[in-house]
Amino acid sequence: MTTLTQNAVLTTAPWQDRVKDKQLRILADVPPQFIHPELKFSDTEANDVLDLPVFSESNPARVMDFPEKYFTKDELAITAMKAEVIPPAILAGTWTAVQVLDAFTHRAVIAHQLLHCCLSFVYPQARAQAEALDVELAKTGKLVGPLHGVPLSVKDQCRIKGTETTCGYVTHLGEWDEEDCLLVDILKKAGAVAFCKTTLSVGCMWGESINNIVGRASNPHNRAFTCGGSSGGEGALIGFGGSPLGVGSDLGGSIRTPSAYNGLHGLRPSSSRIPYFKVLNSMEGQEIIPSVVGPMARSTKSLQLFVKAVVDSQSWKRDPKCPPIPWREEVAEDIRSRPLRVSFLHYDNHVLPQPPIRKALRQLEALLRKAGHDVVPMFTEALDQKRADQFGSDVCTADADEDVQHSRDLSGEPKLPLLPAKGPGALPPQPMTLRESWAFAMDRMEYQASVLKAWEETSAVTKSGEPIDAYITAVNPSVAHIHGEFGKVRYKGYCATANVLDFAACTLPVGKVDVASNPPDNSLTEDADGNTIPSPQCDRDQWIRENYTRNLKEYQSMPLVLQIVAKRWEEEKVLAVSEVVEALVKKEGGL
Amino acid sequence: MTTLTQNAVLTTAPWQDRVKDKQLRILADVPPQFIHPELKFSDTEANDVLDLPVFSESNPARVMDFPEKYFTKDELAITAMKAEVIPPAILAGTWTAVQVLDAFTHRAVIAHQLLHCCLSFVYPQARAQAEALDVELAKTGKLVGPLHGVPLSVKDQCRIKGTETTCGYVTHLGEWDEEDCLLVDILKKAGAVAFCKTTLSVGCMWGESINNIVGRASNPHNRAFTCGGSSGGEGALIGFGGSPLGVGSDLGGSIRTPSAYNGLHGLRPSSSRIPYFKVLNSMEGQEIIPSVVGPMARSTKSLQLFVKAVVDSQSWKRDPKCPPIPWREEVAEDIRSRPLRVSFLHYDNHVLPQPPIRKALRQLEALLRKAGHDVVPMFTEALDQKRADQFGSDVCTADADEDVQHSRDLSGEPKLPLLPAKGPGALPPQPMTLRESWAFAMDRMEYQASVLKAWEETSAVTKSGEPIDAYITAVNPSVAHIHGEFGKVRYKGYCATANVLDFAACTLPVGKVDVASNPPDNSLTEDADGNTIPSPQCDRDQWIRENYTRNLKEYQSMPLVLQIVAKRWEEEKVLAVSEVVEALVKKEGGL
Repeated sequence: MTTLTQNAVLTTAPWQDRVKDKQLRILADVPPQFIHPELKFSDTEANDVLDLPVFSESNPARVMDFPEKYFTKDELAITAMKAEVIPPAILAGTWTAVQVLDAFTHRAVIAHQLLHCCLSFVYPQARAQAEALDVELAKTGKLVGPLHGVPLSVKDQCRIKGTETTCGYVTHLGEWDEEDCLLVDILKKAGAVAFCKTTLSVGCMWGESINNIVGRASNPHNRAFTCGGSSGGEGALIGFGGSPLGVGSDLGGSIRTPSAYNGLHGLRPSSSRIPYFKVLNSMEGQEIIPSVVGPMARSTKSLQLFVKAVVDSQSWKRDPKCPPIPWREEVAEDIRSRPLRVSFLHYDNHVLPQPPIRKALRQLEALLRKAGHDVVPMFTEALDQKRADQFGSDVCTADADEDVQHSRDLSGEPKLPLLPAKGPGALPPQPMTLRESWAFAMDRMEYQASVLKAWEETSAVTKSGEPIDAYITAVNPSVAHIHGEFGKVRYKGYCATANVLDFAACTLPVGKVDVASNPPDNSLTEDADGNTIPSPQCDRDQWIRENYTRNLKEYQSMPLVLQIVAKRWEEEKVLAVSEVVEALVKKEGGL
Repeated sequence: MTTLTQNAVLTTAPWQDRVKDKQLRILADVPPQFIHPELKFSDTEANDVLDLPVFSESNPARVMDFPEKYFTKDELAITAMKAEVIPPAILAGTWTAVQVLDAFTHRAVIAHQLLHCCLSFVYPQARAQAEALDVELAKTGKLVGPLHGVPLSVKDQCRIKGTETTCGYVTHLGEWDEEDCLLVDILKKAGAVAFCKTTLSVGCMWGESINNIVGRASNPHNRAFTCGGSSGGEGALIGFGGSPLGVGSDLGGSIRTPSAYNGLHGLRPSSSRIPYFKVLNSMEGQEIIPSVVGPMARSTKSLQLFVKAVVDSQSWKRDPKCPPIPWREEVAEDIRSRPLRVSFLHYDNHVLPQPPIRKALRQLEALLRKAGHDVVPMFTEALDQKRADQFGSDVCTADADEDVQHSRDLSGEPKLPLLPAKGPGALPPQPMTLRESWAFAMDRMEYQASVLKAWEETSAVTKSGEPIDAYITAVNPSVAHIHGEFGKVRYKGYCATANVLDFAACTLPVGKVDVASNPPDNSLTEDADGNTIPSPQCDRDQWIRENYTRNLKEYQSMPLVLQIVAKRWEEEKVLAVSEVVEALVKKEGGL
């Protein structure tokens, strides 16, 4: 199938021309009635990709509510549905797959106009698929699979036949995928309708979504904030309601950071539980701490639906890296049937979370205790998040940026001046040697083993004599951060720990920031209640605290999201814990 | 516990002195009545580690039978037991754990005197453990675990508290392990009695077992032959009857080659199905094609017993690399309950197996067909063993020998001139860069995926419409090879394919070479029956064929062993297929 979008300018053209052409092509294939030319990303045209967007009364920074007038009542009802509600609603005849696709496409187009969150729409292909689903249902009376008619957005690493997959690099514009990546193929066969590809940080290497193709992407809750990264396009799109289910990837928090910043549920699965086969990436073949793909959505149930559908396809028959671990419903049932055993990591002794996160963790701990769950002390020292942060940085800079630079050089696109010249996260002068990388792998395994040991030893302090199911902590020390600040607030400890340990970790939205009940700290050593707090351990620690104080008004109503972490291969368990905690928080009306 | 063996000369002494001292210490702790000074490895003292052993009428090359006079009737009965028979025999009161240990220790000491197959005996420790097992059984009437009283030998990579673990390097002499490696710990807790550590090729990097500590190790079936490597000490020891169960490791055939050469059952499990944690190795941290640990024994049932005991311990709670895949008896039961679906790889289009192996494969295929099993054509081209052989060589030389050289340099021991200067297996001039290693990992994954695809596609040709369970092939193109010939006959294709694909593969002894019924080929293009055979594709191919012709008499009665290969993580399946085929072959009285 050839569509309008395939008429790209020659791949030999100057990179600026290729980008201009691409920007025109992003919405070229969607029905024109879904496009509203008056909606703008910023009041000013960006001269430079790093320019900050500018807002005004007619084009406000906060866009979660105002675009409602652009939608019909049906479109609002459809786009309010969580992924798990869609197949039953289609089966019941409430909506057709085509109606569902159209409503989400319309909303996604508006999301893109406001937030620059998309890189491709594949409407003709998606429409044909949705029509076929409707025909099939009419003929058989049955859904084709567990995701029948669920619109699916994917980070622009996931190949979809007939699209360009850029990974944020200009060089891949005009290169057309000849096949779906395995994950997209599995999800389509389960009935999902892949309709949109989302923006990301160039090469997936940064916690804000910036590239030379669409520039910055913004956060729908407040466009002064980044939507996070590297799967930030998914975060912004799903956060705005433009997609019920998306695929992100995570090497050091790239699913969980945008999930947190945009108020979503996101799962960082253990490596290869979800197949990465034929998904494009930077530093491909780097396997010491592998990047993983996982779902982002609006409920724990959506994440469960996704993982179960993928695992049930027996992906290990096609992706050589996937282990044959079936979906284990009995693990989830066990969790639902008894008190949870959990620990809380309020502070990792290195970087202190901002006041609303600290308070939410305290409240949730009290809530769990009250409900009869078994909360035991956290093995903070053994977890050693500072060490995990260092591992995470070292793996991201293992090749001294050679691979990223190579991909940039292919098109001549310029380097984005994001990385600090020195200090945490700065590039080393040269790549690791092979033997250094082996020593690194051994260090990492020793670290993993020491944490496993500490985890098992929690059996000494739980009531049942079994180890904890999970620990609960911040996703990042910042609730979110304003465009351009990532370099200063970047501390991956809370996220990267799960990557280094290859643990299953998911995010759980628990409410929104209310600055009145979450005042800033009195000082760097005293919180708003007059309690002593640890003094900052590093520049980042201080910046993160001061950011909240300095931008208090901007933080109003930003999503408040926590993280739940279980061990390796425990996707069923971490999601079941999330389900139980989510229900408790919901009963309480949020934290 | 301090034993005699701990009084090593200073680690700062010249390497020759450390080696002489070690050689004296190997048998220092075993009861003196188990040592027979008249038994000799060779008629001549070796001046150089590479000198070939010399035999005579009073010290013949074939030693499988003649040492029987050294044993009591009870010792002969005990050391004839397979591993799985031992715990029930102890439970029934036929033997005590101490009797079993003593009989195997006596036989292992003789094996070492004749074959130079051991590096440490840990008799005092093992004796204390066996005594404790006997006390426990007397007290409770129950076995402590599934391996109660089974003597266990381990390749000298596996740490046992209080021993030196050398990995074949002089530098580690005098370094005493402070704890057991995880696998030894698990096996001991299951009741196994670790009594002996076996020799190996220096750094596990060679298909003959040669190092500067005990020199060459020989094959008990004919000491003119090597016992293979790198787990050759295990091969020789178990082959001689000196141990019922051993642990080897396999990066390119290091379990299967000595299993084949010594007539044993050996399993190359998928990586991390059996925990490697705290097992010493060369090139530690190299994870693209990982080395694996696995069992070597005298029956398929022994291998099953070992794997089930280890997996049932939930090793994933302690080794961060192990996936939580429990022992799946239902997979084995399925295999036992229906016709097998198998293919035969008679020839990989690159190196032709020697005549006895070709004939055994043909006979086994006919036998399986006759018994109603579903034999379908092999996907020889997609399996592409030549490519696997290249991957295997590339990974072994990835660091251009830097790690091995570093370990040698620590003691000053000389390099053994084993590797060819050029051609297959020769060292590259410099190590892979990190990015080259990533590209290598991607190539390897593409290869894995292409084979998975071909495997799944066999469903089109089987009777049931399901893919094959396993394929059956040679372990190596040579039945075995004479000391010092490895450099010329080294073709890892048949073995390394399973390593590169991370497939579960086991060996199956099917008989012994009878040169009368297995005459050499008439020429390089015609076999003994006058059938055309493919002409040699490379020097190795020609050497391997000519070796059989040239040394026909020496090959008489050498073990004939085949290989069964199932997919990744299919240990239960490959062992169940082996069980079914083993029973068929046994019914036939061998091939």
